[in-house]
Amino acid sequence: MSKAYTVAVVGATGAVGQQMMKTLEDREFPISKILLLSSKRSAGKKLLFNGQEVEVQEATPDSFEGVDIALFSAGGSISKELASEAVKRGAIVIDNTSAFRMDPTVPLVVPEVNEEDLRNHNGIIANPNCSTIQMVVALEPLRKAYGLNKVIVSTYQAVSGAGAAAINELKTQAKAMLEGEEVTSEILPVGSLDKHYPIAFNAIPQIDKFEENGFTFEEMKMINETKKIMHLPELEVAATCVRLPVVSGHSESVYIETDKALKVEEVKALLREADGVVLQDNPSEQLYPMPLYAVGKYDTFVGRIRKDLNKDNGLHLWVVSDNLLKGAAWNSVQIAESLIKLQLV
Amino acid sequence: MSKAYTVAVVGATGAVGQQMMKTLEDREFPISKILLLSSKRSAGKKLLFNGQEVEVQEATPDSFEGVDIALFSAGGSISKELASEAVKRGAIVIDNTSAFRMDPTVPLVVPEVNEEDLRNHNGIIANPNCSTIQMVVALEPLRKAYGLNKVIVSTYQAVSGAGAAAINELKTQAKAMLEGEEVTSEILPVGSLDKHYPIAFNAIPQIDKFEENGFTFEEMKMINETKKIMHLPELEVAATCVRLPVVSGHSESVYIETDKALKVEEVKALLREADGVVLQDNPSEQLYPMPLYAVGKYDTFVGRIRKDLNKDNGLHLWVVSDNLLKGAAWNSVQIAESLIKLQLV
Repeated sequence: MSKAYTVAVVGATGAVGQQMMKTLEDREFPISKILLLSSKRSAGKKLLFNGQEVEVQEATPDSFEGVDIALFSAGGSISKELASEAVKRGAIVIDNTSAFRMDPTVPLVVPEVNEEDLRNHNGIIANPNCSTIQMVVALEPLRKAYGLNKVIVSTYQAVSGAGAAAINELKTQAKAMLEGEEVTSEILPVGSLDKHYPIAFNAIPQIDKFEENGFTFEEMKMINETKKIMHLPELEVAATCVRLPVVSGHSESVYIETDKALKVEEVKALLREADGVVLQDNPSEQLYPMPLYAVGKYDTFVGRIRKDLNKDNGLHLWVVSDNLLKGAAWNSVQIAESLIKLQLV
Repeated sequence: MSKAYTVAVVGATGAVGQQMMKTLEDREFPISKILLLSSKRSAGKKLLFNGQEVEVQEATPDSFEGVDIALFSAGGSISKELASEAVKRGAIVIDNTSAFRMDPTVPLVVPEVNEEDLRNHNGIIANPNCSTIQMVVALEPLRKAYGLNKVIVSTYQAVSGAGAAAINELKTQAKAMLEGEEVTSEILPVGSLDKHYPIAFNAIPQIDKFEENGFTFEEMKMINETKKIMHLPELEVAATCVRLPVVSGHSESVYIETDKALKVEEVKALLREADGVVLQDNPSEQLYPMPLYAVGKYDTFVGRIRKDLNKDNGLHLWVVSDNLLKGAAWNSVQIAESLIKLQLV
């Protein structure tokens, strides 16, 4: 008989928490007991898990007694406060916030790329930023075959990455604009900052706060996390991150330069066979990935593969995935599955 | 007394034609007589110009008798059929289609960049593709100061570039999706092709048809036209063109490499002084260009200026403009103004 685990979902009422629960159900994850945890504000709510009603409890250090695996997605400050408490009580934490991602003692894992890094965990494993995950899933098969030295990415990111309130804001604004009414903005681009702009029928070139160097924190996450996950500290990465009026599904226009010259047909063959990748690339049939069709899927969709017209080692591609699934919930659950497979839990 | 001209607008009832008329009014262009021309289908309609009702006439070769300046925006086949007829009858044609852009005998002009090329015209002057125009306006001041050898651009293009029917399609689809109704798609990405996809709450990585090399025609336009306008046949240009659920206003994430090393503050100073450019770049105030705020403006807005983290000669920027104005109608009228200024008409 295979083992079953006590699993805690921290931030169960949030957009990602909800997808984590759904993913655990879909995957028939071996669960003996589920704990749904949240801030004090959401405690007391009742949610369905596998057809059973479960009451959401306030997350406290003692909540983690007896927990085997804790999936955190309730914001960086909750993770900083409670992840080590969970580890002290014997849980392995899979954290979906940016709190520990760049901590050298914490593995930052995308199973298709660096599952083996899980062996070095010290209780906490970080789940990368959504836009980073789908990109490295697409690039890893190419790195293996050709080496990788440069990445320039421009993102087309959905509002669900900013939470359920941002989804509501987009829909409310779109409805108002279509009816010729006044529009208000309170959430995007960054809830905690002063200025808010409409996202409906707009594109906002800011995701998260600005850093000193003019890049946003989201852009720096893509830059730094890509190097860490791929074990390529010298990789040249640049990112421009843009929020779109799309509900879910992040898209990315990616340019790479490899060490060796590329062949497009070979690239397509590699991606067709790659774990977690679905190749959607047939110009004559107008086949390419789009966010509307990626929603609800675990895969990363890759298309628009073209050799650069000037460089034999240059390639352009278009990468789309459900930011709440492969970008968050599914990658976290997949890490948990890898931990079981590697007998680390 | 300064001269006034007989001006024809070919395609007057279309999205760009309408903006051409509005721009001629706004600029108080010296017009003695206006002719509004169209396909047979739209002939007979009555439009207001400078408060006067003008009947739209079917465009035929003889329509151009006595015309000084003819602004064409009625599709490539109309231009191919009638532009030379207009020239034969003494008109100067400013053509907003792709029909003559790459013809070596036809100047392809963005006045801020290569106004002097107008001197070599043989009757026809081509107005570049919308996404190309705003990019070269932003890049020309940098080319002058630093030289330019590489451009990688990913676009975020509005539906109005595909005409009034595409705007209607976006709005109809958005309304249906918000109400949970079925959505139909008939126009985008390319009306004449087999497959159509919803643009509302989506992103479609296809603008115009695919070429043999995997790039779309829109992408090849950006690549080839940029080289021609900037007189840089050796420039390395790559483009990925994406349609968004934005009504008007194209945005572009642009990466460039220059011959000399760049300084961000110097770049900002150059762009602040550049013709046709408005610098909107202040991260601490969350100031950057966005399409929703560019609509109705003649300028090209530039922001998110960052030095590349790896290359001293690498720069990232975000360029936004109204694709119907600087991308089409305004650039065409501006060419007409330049012709007058240079005494070429």
